[in-house]
Amino acid sequence: MSNFKVKMAYDGSSYHGFQRQDNALTVQEVVEEAIKKLFLQDITIFGCSRTDTGVHANEYYFSFHCNDKIQINSRGIVFGLNSKLPDDIAILSCEEVDESFHARYNCIGKEYKYIIHNSEIKDPFLRTRVYKYWYPIDERLLNKAAKHFVGTHDFRSFCTNADEKENTVRTIHRFDVERYGDKIIMIVSGNGFLYNMVRIMVGTLLFVNEGKIDESDIPEIIEKKDRKFAGRTAGASGLYLNKVYY
Amino acid sequence: MSNFKVKMAYDGSSYHGFQRQDNALTVQEVVEEAIKKLFLQDITIFGCSRTDTGVHANEYYFSFHCNDKIQINSRGIVFGLNSKLPDDIAILSCEEVDESFHARYNCIGKEYKYIIHNSEIKDPFLRTRVYKYWYPIDERLLNKAAKHFVGTHDFRSFCTNADEKENTVRTIHRFDVERYGDKIIMIVSGNGFLYNMVRIMVGTLLFVNEGKIDESDIPEIIEKKDRKFAGRTAGASGLYLNKVYY
Repeated sequence: MSNFKVKMAYDGSSYHGFQRQDNALTVQEVVEEAIKKLFLQDITIFGCSRTDTGVHANEYYFSFHCNDKIQINSRGIVFGLNSKLPDDIAILSCEEVDESFHARYNCIGKEYKYIIHNSEIKDPFLRTRVYKYWYPIDERLLNKAAKHFVGTHDFRSFCTNADEKENTVRTIHRFDVERYGDKIIMIVSGNGFLYNMVRIMVGTLLFVNEGKIDESDIPEIIEKKDRKFAGRTAGASGLYLNKVYY
Repeated sequence: MSNFKVKMAYDGSSYHGFQRQDNALTVQEVVEEAIKKLFLQDITIFGCSRTDTGVHANEYYFSFHCNDKIQINSRGIVFGLNSKLPDDIAILSCEEVDESFHARYNCIGKEYKYIIHNSEIKDPFLRTRVYKYWYPIDERLLNKAAKHFVGTHDFRSFCTNADEKENTVRTIHRFDVERYGDKIIMIVSGNGFLYNMVRIMVGTLLFVNEGKIDESDIPEIIEKKDRKFAGRTAGASGLYLNKVYY
């Protein structure tokens, strides 16, 4: 058996996330169909992460096994799959890896980027690619507030539908907020992320911006371990899986 | 009568150009429908330029008259129209102008930007926003070749379906080709442009890149005043109306 690790990027605007679903179009389904056309067999791919509907990926990895009779090398997989995929999904590179490699289980960390278009006027080229936010943003305040998330904490307050028995402790390595013109760029990296965790942390920062939550209250919100004390879930359109670490 | 000059931007991917057509969706039709919803009357807008199907605008002007009974100021027009337009068309600003102003007739020059994504691998975020070109581009050679277009020439060789009696003399002020990573950016400005002129000039430069036309032959191609000697018409997806001068 050969095992391949594939790097891709996708514009998630048209997809209900990565993970295959029965009644909605997902990235996994489209990629598996392209693989079937190339390899002439059904192959299941293992993604590094679920992503929500409308979330994008600048860097996403999946792995898959195929039997050694397939005479196609890594470069052939890149060009072959790209030719069979729609233009909003791109295969960036591919390498053969040890048979035990699994894109999800071997992942040791991830970095997300969140882009806010902070403007009164919309940008027709960014519509599904940013989170549009009209009200002026104080990026210094939010950058200060974001630092409360850095470290190892129980992030139960920042998770949608956390199961009682679920381990909700995660380590955030970095959370930076910077302004570039009318864009606010947030970079968050950590060893793992709960369901909607980045979007709820961003939504909480926006509550800080709106004066609904005080910056210094974030440690207490973390302590409460209850979703209802955190801010809203910010829109999916601004979120990009940006880097994946192995 | 009041006369308004409106600046907008649009992603042209979904439109058959600016100018209203009977059987295809155009930017003009969509904007006039939004105006009708806001002003509750049929108003014809005058665009600064036709644009081809799939061509984009970072800056585009139109003007329109309405009677003085309309109680809506420039800021109201910007926010009102944006709320009624789809997300791929944005009104950027609006000002009241002299009654004689006409967005097309008063225009004294334009600048176009052409973006080539020069890469083996596609970018899922740029699909309808660039012209994808696989083969390596020698941007220095093309920049040198582009300079032959600068000046006042009869550009009949660089026009689709030029009428015999049509005046095809235009002045090009600037034609620069630069590389930014895997993007090749071309900036062309002039006092006016013939049908498909920018795209045929770009296609001619790509013929130079491919060795099908020698850089030094461009003055002779201009002299021939015959479309068949120029290069192909480069794709619409890379073309942006970038600035409009009054």
